[in-house]
Formats: sequence, structure tokens, C-alpha cells
Amino acid sequence: MRNDVAQGAVVWFTGLSGAGKSTLAGLLAAEVGRRGTRVEVLDGDEVRTNLSKGLGFSREDRDANIRRIGYVARLLARNGVHVITAAISPYRDVRDEVRRLVEADGAAFVEVFARCPIEVLAARDVKGLYARALRGEIPNFTGISDPYEEPPRPDVTVHSDRERPEESLARILAVLESRGLVASPDPAW
Amino acid sequence: MRNDVAQGAVVWFTGLSGAGKSTLAGLLAAEVGRRGTRVEVLDGDEVRTNLSKGLGFSREDRDANIRRIGYVARLLARNGVHVITAAISPYRDVRDEVRRLVEADGAAFVEVFARCPIEVLAARDVKGLYARALRGEIPNFTGISDPYEEPPRPDVTVHSDRERPEESLARILAVLESRGLVASPDPAW
Repeated sequence: MRNDVAQGAVVWFTGLSGAGKSTLAGLLAAEVGRRGTRVEVLDGDEVRTNLSKGLGFSREDRDANIRRIGYVARLLARNGVHVITAAISPYRDVRDEVRRLVEADGAAFVEVFARCPIEVLAARDVKGLYARALRGEIPNFTGISDPYEEPPRPDVTVHSDRERPEESLARILAVLESRGLVASPDPAW
Repeated sequence: MRNDVAQGAVVWFTGLSGAGKSTLAGLLAAEVGRRGTRVEVLDGDEVRTNLSKGLGFSREDRDANIRRIGYVARLLARNGVHVITAAISPYRDVRDEVRRLVEADGAAFVEVFARCPIEVLAARDVKGLYARALRGEIPNFTGISDPYEEPPRPDVTVHSDRERPEESLARILAVLESRGLVASPDPAW
């Protein structure tokens, strides 16, 4: 059964590679769906395949990629769908530009900063990317050879170095509930 | 008030430049919206700006552009939104590929062929493009210097050379009604 929360929302994760964006996006999507709201995840890698093949990792190309994710997220959100994005999105200006466009359409924009110290990410290094980047083998690697601009006022900050995913998820859901964007876990219907 | 027709649909116009795709897409969107269904138009030019900047008009680039429109249309349609696309989409294979993906998600795909003889379009030539293409000034101009593959079995064919837009619109709506994709004009509520 669908619970028609009228307003669509974009939950926009931003943070370094390995900071937990995709994991949390997946957990959040499952829970939002369970609570009866239509939801789509736009993951960075999937979107690169479907919308941005041929774009590289220069600032210009990254911004173009983020604008495309923003465009699709906006179309969905203004039709009442919740959209969860999980791209690094390192540049503040283009994140803020997407927020303005989404909000101009009457949808909500919730920025979630997946914060994790780069030393922790480099030590963890699940995909072996940080080691390669630190050896200078990956140009334009965010946080090492390319900038990451932290959001000054994210709606939620999560810390994968010191909280379990379930805790981060609970805090994101609390914010969405407080803004009326998802139903409470035990609604009266 | 929203009339929640459960199934989303992609109404995919195809046809030469000037054959009436955008005009009909606009009329159809207004009427579908009036009948209470959420609707988005993905116009060829708008999508090129938002998703496909940098792509040209080679077969490869055109196919990439159509696949991107198809990807966005599919995300919307599987969430119950009706999507009307109005790109030339000259190649049969990629149109059929989009149809398969949309239908695999449980949404409907309705192909509308905007058919108009090229002589009529060249005589009309609202934007002056046919004259330039016929003088050899526009490479890759569909129908003149680039192929257009007609759909062998479109769901609807409209003829802007011999019917008024209102007539074409009525026939498209009749097909959508018959498939339960839009409410009848005078529903019982």
C-alpha cells in the first residue's frame, strides 16, 4: 500500500569515496519504501553509465555530471517520488544550485554529509583506490589530488568512522520524519 | 485532485523535424494533466541541454541521447508518472530497446508516429532548416542527409499534413483510454 506523502524529496548524500554514501543510500531507500513512499536511488556509478558516459573527472565534467543527476532527481521529486543520490559531489556551488532548483519546484532537499577522516578511509581502503591515489596513480582523486568542499550547513552529518550504519540511518530518518517527508514507523493506519 | 492511475506510461513520439511532435506533446500533456495524472514532457531540445550537451548527431551520439531520454522516462514511468517524449529518434533499434526496458519495469510504452511527407515539411519549413539541409548546409539532417527509420508497427500514427492537431490528439487519447492509461473525460467521480 502506498502512503501518499504529497511532497517529493531529494536526499543528497555528499562525501569522499568510501565514506558510506552508497551503503546508507541503500538502507535508507529500503526503509523509505517500507514506509510506503515511492523511492529511487541515483548512485554515482550507475548514473555515470546511463547519463554521463564520456565525462571525465575535471571540475567541468564533474559539475556536468552532478547537474544531470540533479535534473533527473528534480523531475522525480516534483512528481512526489523520493530520490536518494549518492555521488561524491565535491563542489559546493553545484550542490547549492541543485538545491535551489529542487526547492523552486516545491520539493524538499535534504543534504546529508557523510563525514569520515581521510586517514580512516585510506586505512580502510576497501577498493584499494586510496593507496593508488596516494602513490599518484589516480589523477583527480577527490580528497587526495582533487578538492572536496565540505558542506557548511548540511541537514544531517553522519560519521562512518564512529557510528554504525543503523545509527546514521536512524538520525537521517528522524530528520525526514520531523519535516513530514516520511511516515513514522508505526502510523495509526 | 490526483487520479491515481496506477501504471505509468511513456508516450514516445517519433518523426521528422516539423512533423508536429512537440505541438502534440504539449497538447497531450495538458489534457493528461487535466484528467488528473502526473505528467512530464521530455522534449528533444530541452533534454539535449540538460542531459546531452556535447553530443552531436552521429548515429552513435543520437543513440546515446535517445538512451538517456529513455532512462529518465523509465525512472518516471515506473513511479506512476506519464512521460511524453518528443525527440526525432530516427533509429528503430534504440526505440525498441527503450520500449523493452520500460515494459520490463511494468510501465506502458505507446509509440506515436508523427508521419508527414518530406515534401510537405520542406514546403512548410517553419524554421528554415529544410531549405538549408537541401542546400547541403546541414550534415546529418534526418530525412535529407541522414536516415529516418519508420516504425513498422506504431501504436498510433498521426498525420499533420491532413488532420488538425485536435484530431490527432483525440486519436492518441482514445488509445490511452482503451488501455486504461488515462481516465475518461467525464469520470463518475
